[in-house]
Amino acid sequence: MIRGLTRAGLGTIESNERLISGAAQFGFQAIDLNPLHFIRECGMEKAKDLLDNKGVMIGSIDLDVDWRSSEERFREGLKALPEAAEAAMSLGCFKCCTYILPSTDEPAAPFMAAATRRLKLCADILGAYGIRLGLEFVGSWHLRTQWANPFLWTMDDTLDWIETIGAHNVGLLIDSYHWHTNGMTTDDLLKLKPAYIVHVHINDAKAGPIENLLDGDRLYPGEGVINLHGFLQALQAAGYSGVVAQEVLGSPSSLSMDELLARSKAGFDIAFANLQ
Amino acid sequence: MIRGLTRAGLGTIESNERLISGAAQFGFQAIDLNPLHFIRECGMEKAKDLLDNKGVMIGSIDLDVDWRSSEERFREGLKALPEAAEAAMSLGCFKCCTYILPSTDEPAAPFMAAATRRLKLCADILGAYGIRLGLEFVGSWHLRTQWANPFLWTMDDTLDWIETIGAHNVGLLIDSYHWHTNGMTTDDLLKLKPAYIVHVHINDAKAGPIENLLDGDRLYPGEGVINLHGFLQALQAAGYSGVVAQEVLGSPSSLSMDELLARSKAGFDIAFANLQ
Amino acid sequence: MIRGLTRAGLGTIESNERLISGAAQFGFQAIDLNPLHFIRECGMEKAKDLLDNKGVMIGSIDLDVDWRSSEERFREGLKALPEAAEAAMSLGCFKCCTYILPSTDEPAAPFMAAATRRLKLCADILGAYGIRLGLEFVGSWHLRTQWANPFLWTMDDTLDWIETIGAHNVGLLIDSYHWHTNGMTTDDLLKLKPAYIVHVHINDAKAGPIENLLDGDRLYPGEGVINLHGFLQALQAAGYSGVVAQEVLGSPSSLSMDELLARSKAGFDIAFANLQ
Amino acid sequence: MIRGLTRAGLGTIESNERLISGAAQFGFQAIDLNPLHFIRECGMEKAKDLLDNKGVMIGSIDLDVDWRSSEERFREGLKALPEAAEAAMSLGCFKCCTYILPSTDEPAAPFMAAATRRLKLCADILGAYGIRLGLEFVGSWHLRTQWANPFLWTMDDTLDWIETIGAHNVGLLIDSYHWHTNGMTTDDLLKLKPAYIVHVHINDAKAGPIENLLDGDRLYPGEGVINLHGFLQALQAAGYSGVVAQEVLGSPSSLSMDELLARSKAGFDIAFANLQ
Repeated sequence: MIRGLTRAGLGTIESNERLISGAAQFGFQAIDLNPLHFIRECGMEKAKDLLDNKGVMIGSIDLDVDWRSSEERFREGLKALPEAAEAAMSLGCFKCCTYILPSTDEPAAPFMAAATRRLKLCADILGAYGIRLGLEFVGSWHLRTQWANPFLWTMDDTLDWIETIGAHNVGLLIDSYHWHTNGMTTDDLLKLKPAYIVHVHINDAKAGPIENLLDGDRLYPGEGVINLHGFLQALQAAGYSGVVAQEVLGSPSSLSMDELLARSKAGFDIAFANLQ
Repeated sequence: MIRGLTRAGLGTIESNERLISGAAQFGFQAIDLNPLHFIRECGMEKAKDLLDNKGVMIGSIDLDVDWRSSEERFREGLKALPEAAEAAMSLGCFKCCTYILPSTDEPAAPFMAAATRRLKLCADILGAYGIRLGLEFVGSWHLRTQWANPFLWTMDDTLDWIETIGAHNVGLLIDSYHWHTNGMTTDDLLKLKPAYIVHVHINDAKAGPIENLLDGDRLYPGEGVINLHGFLQALQAAGYSGVVAQEVLGSPSSLSMDELLARSKAGFDIAFANLQ
Repeated sequence: MIRGLTRAGLGTIESNERLISGAAQFGFQAIDLNPLHFIRECGMEKAKDLLDNKGVMIGSIDLDVDWRSSEERFREGLKALPEAAEAAMSLGCFKCCTYILPSTDEPAAPFMAAATRRLKLCADILGAYGIRLGLEFVGSWHLRTQWANPFLWTMDDTLDWIETIGAHNVGLLIDSYHWHTNGMTTDDLLKLKPAYIVHVHINDAKAGPIENLLDGDRLYPGEGVINLHGFLQALQAAGYSGVVAQEVLGSPSSLSMDELLARSKAGFDIAFANLQ
Repeated sequence: MIRGLTRAGLGTIESNERLISGAAQFGFQAIDLNPLHFIRECGMEKAKDLLDNKGVMIGSIDLDVDWRSSEERFREGLKALPEAAEAAMSLGCFKCCTYILPSTDEPAAPFMAAATRRLKLCADILGAYGIRLGLEFVGSWHLRTQWANPFLWTMDDTLDWIETIGAHNVGLLIDSYHWHTNGMTTDDLLKLKPAYIVHVHINDAKAGPIENLLDGDRLYPGEGVINLHGFLQALQAAGYSGVVAQEVLGSPSSLSMDELLARSKAGFDIAFANLQ
């Protein structure tokens, strides 16, 4: 498995260039970023060189299409999707991810119909570029009642939804925080087929009842109670060998990016111990 | 448009054969029935002859697959679907319908995902036999809260769902009772494209606020307050020229089938006046 | 039905603005054009005003995506498709068309697999904007052997392919020249369902055996041997009420656009006589 | 990987029961059979017991639907598919396979359109039972010109077709004979994702130019020139751990089933040496 980073939990990041060199310096081989921003920032050639020179790959891009509100907004986002997909492909990245909020102010059933149609179309566009789409289920309990109607938050419901979407290239983004807050075990991961694991996030949780954990109050890997080593072992046993990206959603830190990268590295060293 | 009957509202029906001759006698040209039962009852050759001799066609068959509960039950129903479709095709019927309950005890979003997948598969199987699938939205207000979670009951939500299902051969079954209880107008029908109107039911409603009307308390056409003539005129203007089948869900009547057919005919004569 | 024009057969056209005013002057209510070019030419607001002021609508846009060669070229074209679809929608146009060459240098079966996947994706993207995709079968005999392997050229094969593509919004573009060169009759049109007729082209053919007619040697409506009046009557009887656009592929003419419009009008007057 | 058998190459097989006990006796853990025949032969309970008692599983069932000729024949076969799928599921088998003839008397492009639609429907029905569909490309050169028009025979074209079919549960059946006659290498197998390998056949080939090898003239594993050990090693490295079933298509043998099983075992012992 490959050590990766998202921007969440790294404080102020001056540029993608700085992020790449910082990642390399602290032993990370992948970062998640916005490919269109990156190319706009430094041009395609330099972007490729930066990644190559530092031995860093792009782990995944975000699905930058709003599939959760109106058809108008969905169509608006659709316009840049083929270009973003091509940019990702050109930079050697073949994963795109989006998260599923566990509740919604829309009526749940019609929203599920619209979301299915929209995500299917995004998956098909991404598929033309060889890119897989990972859907992240979100376990945090407070979000299940944050909006008027429950939507979905379990892995099994997400897998079932993926069957309905029906595209070859759709699977899960599995985040250790949502695995933990959903009260899941390593056995739940072991039953997965590799084709259904698109991407992986890690971060840690405070102690206490899982129903009280807040989505935006996460800890750095190794600083909390989640069995991250077991989590990664199970994913590896299930056949996953791709990027595991840190995503620490929390209050802004006063530490510098380098200090935070050192802290992240320490957690990864423990979680990845003895894994291939 | 073609005058049709379902079995609902005709009291005790001795046999499909009697239903066919009764329909013909009272000026109806179509009946909805179960094609496998019919063929089992009298054999394919006699079944065809009965219809031909009386000038009666089959308007639509019911989707005899339980797509509303478990995967097990869904799969169980699937087994007879190709055979039922072939039977319908052999008897010259190319429509199959099912109704959508406006609420469900299942969590709404996962149920929508499962229902979408199941109905898509049914539609695709039916499509191999040239058969279209009509989805009937159900407006009755008391059913919207009959089960724990709201599902859907409006025509627009149903059309949107049909887009998601994405099959060429799926459209609406429009029932005058649900048009009325949803507070719809003829303009709502005029905007429909003909490809989206698979089948039509008529029956009438008692006076009073639509929110109080019970689904199982319907009246014979012409005996209530629904503007059935306007309803049919609008459907015809929208390009529909198929079967309009009476479906009177109500308490059992003490009248004979022939008496009820005469009553139905009287209502149809008014509703169909001056229509082609 | 609505009288329409493509750019083919009108000589040198100074601008879309001139085309619109010329169309209006000679009694045409629709033109086919490239919506992105049009908006680039004069801005969205002026584009709308030009159409509104002259009472001219856009009949259809071309599918500006190369689905016939490599995946690379297909992906290249995909990038502008959502924007073109949005432009068409903004200008009130909900049709997009492409033609099918009857032979190909690619191996036929793998090419059909690729073409199916590509056109399905285009159709789904267009569908997000409410736009239908019309596939034009091409009857011209010399094109059936122009490239190494036969592909398809009949209406029935195209309809069957549309079933496979499986999208709700795909149908036919029917061109009178291909109807004629395929040796088709009005009965072939009468059996069509309206949902399957997306767009219509007219133009005329020289006398002589249909197997000798060249694709780029067409005549103006009314100047050849095709029974255009019967063609249009049959399409109307089949439920089509949309745009019928002239497309005269032939040698460049020395006549001016206005002279050619007058000539086109004369042909339309005969072909449209007594049609609604 | 699991040692398996098909019926091809075992001479006269008295019954599935005898086949199961013979397989177990000679160290095979899987057989391919027709689940409906098997259940009809001995009933569901006894069928399960036979498999359980001998430690033998069903490797794969054949797709018993004719998707290669007319719609009528396709529909005819469709009728038993849900029941066959349920039987397979009940017996613990979740694979179904069919082969692709490399040429066809049908026009290639329309046939590809029809075949895509038919196999998609079969895949979706099988998917409701959790069953995957494996498509077997057939390399034998003489079959490429056996019928009027070339269809497809390479792994890459088959993978591309699978993308078009677009179902989550469709992949390859890889047969060592077709790997050999297509001139493929172990590298071609190493690039496969596990989700795309549904089932594997082995058998051996005579020496000589691959273009001369006849499809019905195969040898027992280990008796010919194919590097079966390398073939299996590469599949294992690509993530495949399922059944590898012998399928020896050849002239009837005068040997008994037990003698042929002993011969097969000898070949498997060599091919499987040092594999897990």
